[in-house]
Amino acid sequence: MGSSILSGTFISFEGPDGAGKTSALRAITAQIMDGLGDQLVITREPGGNPISESIRSIILDRANTAMDYRTEALLYAAARRQHLAQTILPALEADQLVLCDRYVDSSIAYQGAGRQIGEDAVAEMNQFATDGLLPDLTIYFDVPAEVGLRRIQAHRQADQVDRLDVEKTAFHDRVRAAYLRLQAADPDRIKRIDATQEPAKVVEQALTLIKQTAPRYF
Amino acid sequence: MGSSILSGTFISFEGPDGAGKTSALRAITAQIMDGLGDQLVITREPGGNPISESIRSIILDRANTAMDYRTEALLYAAARRQHLAQTILPALEADQLVLCDRYVDSSIAYQGAGRQIGEDAVAEMNQFATDGLLPDLTIYFDVPAEVGLRRIQAHRQADQVDRLDVEKTAFHDRVRAAYLRLQAADPDRIKRIDATQEPAKVVEQALTLIKQTAPRYF
Repeated sequence: MGSSILSGTFISFEGPDGAGKTSALRAITAQIMDGLGDQLVITREPGGNPISESIRSIILDRANTAMDYRTEALLYAAARRQHLAQTILPALEADQLVLCDRYVDSSIAYQGAGRQIGEDAVAEMNQFATDGLLPDLTIYFDVPAEVGLRRIQAHRQADQVDRLDVEKTAFHDRVRAAYLRLQAADPDRIKRIDATQEPAKVVEQALTLIKQTAPRYF
Repeated sequence: MGSSILSGTFISFEGPDGAGKTSALRAITAQIMDGLGDQLVITREPGGNPISESIRSIILDRANTAMDYRTEALLYAAARRQHLAQTILPALEADQLVLCDRYVDSSIAYQGAGRQIGEDAVAEMNQFATDGLLPDLTIYFDVPAEVGLRRIQAHRQADQVDRLDVEKTAFHDRVRAAYLRLQAADPDRIKRIDATQEPAKVVEQALTLIKQTAPRYF
């Protein structure tokens, strides 16, 4: 990212839908926000900026049935890039702790493996989008595909189900297998949590990882 | 592009704004359309499909002043991919002659060199978008930056000038230099025409190149 000094700490939350990562992020935020104050930035793609929101609305429009899978992957990468430029990088330059719900590993797992474009091809293309910036820590919330899918069906209303949810179990199996490969290939960055455990235990383990990676904020 | 048989011929028209390539494409179309009939497909990105048009409207929205240059390059690639999937590939599979106003070389020249993201980085990212599909012939309409800019100013109304036009001559010098490098690196595919010549002569030379590359259509 050029010559800027990124003195903050960047942590991403990853996992299949229904793994409970968003709920865990919410619980962790509640526990640490008073202590950290302005040092804490909680975000998720597309991150609320108008450009990324416009891009996301194209991706999720159920009328766009003709969308090619590589078009979709490029649009996710474009929205990611803009969120990085407008939200994550300024926060890291301002020495903040950034907790982000999904980042590049999601594209490698969902577009690369789930859509079967190819994990390496999607990873390389996202290298362009991120200019190589990876999180200091990625917490991977691991659940078998059928557990995740059951949780999604229990928690969402029918009208909240978007285009990506309407996929088969085989897709989610490929997504999980890709996450496990990513974790095995980069165990220093990506830490796996068994997300079939009790939610309180999952939150506790995630918070421990965060404090180990960024002790100076606590 | 998988196992599909692309039996048609794909020709792109490239060059800086004001080089006259769009006028030349129009003149060539008028000369050959009666003879070729349904075998001829004239197109340009974004190509009229709803997804690419939506993407293009985000890129060209003058309100989007916060757009990062890599976001812009990814959006162009996304629109290109969709145009390729919906227009160019079906035409090539149907044995048609495709004449396309701008393709990947535009992104390498404009985003890679003009925006200074890096020509190799933009070329690699577009390799993902195109899955490696390059034109059989690229006609490069070459004019010095100041000639092209003077022509743009003479022909356009102020309210037709979009965000990309509002750039300095240095930008256009970098774009031209990149086109010349691309041509030198791949002289079998990219043929240069001196676009400062009389328009009728430019059209004649372009048409000769097209007939040499795709003689069976004539």
